[in-house]
Formats: sequence, C-alpha cells, structure tokens
Amino acid sequence: MEIIKPEEGEILDIELEEDFLKRNKKLAEENRVLLEKHKVRAIDVMGSIGSGKTSLIGLLSSFLSKIFKIGIIAGDLTTDIDAKRLEGEEIKVVQINTGKECHLDANLVKKALQNLELDKIDLIFIENVGNLICPAEFPLGAHKRIVVVSVTEGPWMVVKHPYIFEEADVVVINKVDLSEAMGVSPGKLAKDVEKINPKAKTIPVSCRKKEGIEEVIKALNL
Amino acid sequence: MEIIKPEEGEILDIELEEDFLKRNKKLAEENRVLLEKHKVRAIDVMGSIGSGKTSLIGLLSSFLSKIFKIGIIAGDLTTDIDAKRLEGEEIKVVQINTGKECHLDANLVKKALQNLELDKIDLIFIENVGNLICPAEFPLGAHKRIVVVSVTEGPWMVVKHPYIFEEADVVVINKVDLSEAMGVSPGKLAKDVEKINPKAKTIPVSCRKKEGIEEVIKALNL
Repeated sequence: MEIIKPEEGEILDIELEEDFLKRNKKLAEENRVLLEKHKVRAIDVMGSIGSGKTSLIGLLSSFLSKIFKIGIIAGDLTTDIDAKRLEGEEIKVVQINTGKECHLDANLVKKALQNLELDKIDLIFIENVGNLICPAEFPLGAHKRIVVVSVTEGPWMVVKHPYIFEEADVVVINKVDLSEAMGVSPGKLAKDVEKINPKAKTIPVSCRKKEGIEEVIKALNL
Repeated sequence: MEIIKPEEGEILDIELEEDFLKRNKKLAEENRVLLEKHKVRAIDVMGSIGSGKTSLIGLLSSFLSKIFKIGIIAGDLTTDIDAKRLEGEEIKVVQINTGKECHLDANLVKKALQNLELDKIDLIFIENVGNLICPAEFPLGAHKRIVVVSVTEGPWMVVKHPYIFEEADVVVINKVDLSEAMGVSPGKLAKDVEKINPKAKTIPVSCRKKEGIEEVIKALNL
C-alpha cells in the first residue's frame, strides 16, 4: 500500500495558516485577560456532531446553576437549534453562526463575550462547532477544554484524532449505555486517550441516563 | 438570544481562502481530464467519522469488483486503519495522510492518482477525511459525490450541515438497524435532505446487515 504524506506546501491552504494561528493565539490571550478581569471561568467544549455536547452542557449547566451564574456561547454553522435547547431563565446564551467555517476562533468568541454581561456571570460554556479536527488548533482563551466522544462514533474515534485529545483537560466518553449495542468499549477508548495524553481525565457518561455528570464536574476542578 | 453572524474579514482564516478554492477547482478539473483520458470513473465519499464510509466502500467494492477493476484513495489525518481494512488482492489502495488538515484537496488526489495504474482501473472510490464541513468546498475531480450519515449521529445531522448535502448526488442514511434504539427517524433525515437538495437520491442502508447496497449502486448510475 502506498502512503502519501504531503510535504510542506503541498496542502493547498496550509501555508498561510501559521499567520492565522498566531493572530488567533494573541486574541485568545486577550480573551483570557478579559475573563480574569471579570472573574469568569470559561470551558471550551469540543466534539463531533451528535456526540452530545449540547446535552452535556445542558446537564452541567442545570447542575451548576445552583452555585454559579452561567453563560453559554454556542457555535454552529447556520442553525440556532442548540442555543434554543440551552437557553433558560437563569442562563444567557449567545449564538455564533460561523457559516462555512468549521471551528470557532478567538475573534468570534471575543465578539460573543461583548454580548454577555461578564460582571453578572461566573462560568461560561463555549460549545464549539461539531468537528474533531479543526478546533484543536484554535484556542479561544478558555481555562479548560472538554472533548466529548460517544461510543456510537465507533472504535477508531480517538486514535484517528490525536491532535484534539492532546489539547483536552477532560475527555467525556458519552452514550456508554449504548456501548454493548454498538460493540464499542469505553475502556478501550479511555486507554487510547491515555496513550495520547496521560494528563487528561477520562469520564464515562450517559447524558441520556444523567450518569457521570458529577464526576465531570469534579474532574473540571472549577 | 443574541445571534452573531460574522461579517467579511471577521473569521480569521477565511479571507485568503478564496484563492485556495480557485486553485483547488482548477486542479480538480485537471484530475477530471486525467480520469476521463483513462476512462476511469471516480466517486468521492464524504461523511463524519464513524458514519460508516469505510464499511460502505468495502461493501460497494466487493460487490462491484465482479464487474470493474477498483482502486481506492483513503484520506485520514494520521492513520492507515481504513486503508488496511479496504485493501484486498483485487483492490489497490493509496493512503493519503493529511496531518492536521481536515479535508482532501485536489492536489493531494492528483498525487494519489499518480500512484495508481489508471489504465488498469475502471472505478475509484475516494474516502474523504471524516468531516461534514470542510470537504464540501473542495471538489476533487470525482464524477459523483456520496454523503454518508448514520442515525447514531442524532436527528440534527442534515439540517446542521446544508453545504455538504447541497453537493451530494447520493445520500446514504446508514445504521438504519439502530434507528429505533436511537430514536432517530431515517425518513425525517431523508426529508431534511430533500429540502436542501431535491436532486439527491437518499438510500437507507445498514452496512452491518448488508442491506441497501444494491440500491446505492443503482442510484450511482455508473
């Protein structure tokens, strides 16, 4: 079998990306300064489409809203389905529609932060665009990063996406109630994470059965 | 709820993308000319990670290898798991590892085509990187595009990704054997596709049960 690994310049849009990454990093640092000035903690939640990011943020928010005032920034290409699911009396949501863009970036989050009253908020969840590749390279200024994978995505999910797991503080393995039906072992996925990033805390979760949520909160060490 | 839709220039890496898209389009046209010169048909298979692209290509190939000589180009960030699953005595596979890049582009496919003996091949399946966003904008020179979604990815899969479905000739709704367990209706997903792209043919499939494969072949109209 031939294996092609492109050399520098062979991927069409990678050459100029370094500049964007530098600009993004600087803006992410500015976001962090702004958040800390207002004593707000922010958590970037990444994962594929359908992995359960919105359900997880919903459960974490309803649990944590007893202690913290919560804001949510929801990224999506064109819809506000997730934002509508998450909005509540106590919870302020800002939707970012990225159009064709496959990840949030620090500039868009900066704009969203301007739409939240930061003095009235303690904790922000940022739901990234559903994608396990592109968001890895774009820090947003958040204090922690959660990656959500679900057993329904199959057994190769972690090993195929090393970069995003390198960046994770907490990895949620979701839909563990379906692991037998799917023939996918949460334990094996956790071992795959450990090989890539031994510091990440991996938590089995079933958002549908509301199991594992307290463990995620402990792992976040807020 | 606030909804932010970025204006031109506000997304960090979108400004220069137009140039890449133009270069890609030109290279895709060159790939198409090369394929037609050698009387080879090519099919670009797109879909999320875990949606079942590799299983589908495996089933289509083993069915069609009775009639056609088949080649496969498999895109993946870093692994060759899929390529190894697909390789067979009769089937030549070229792996492209894109590194951190989230889609195949026409330049990488051009390079892969140079590694296939086109005179000895009738039909090429190109397995794109697992991602429902970025590949939409990068035609590769293929004659047809299949998008694979599975019911395990949840009910919002299609409506959240209009761009990729606009580009599809055939949409495979996979894992329909799990639709009851998941509470996701294949019929609803098919209607969502129809609203975005009335010309696309939508086929319910279970790769695990080998159901729907002949219907996909008919829909491809090879």
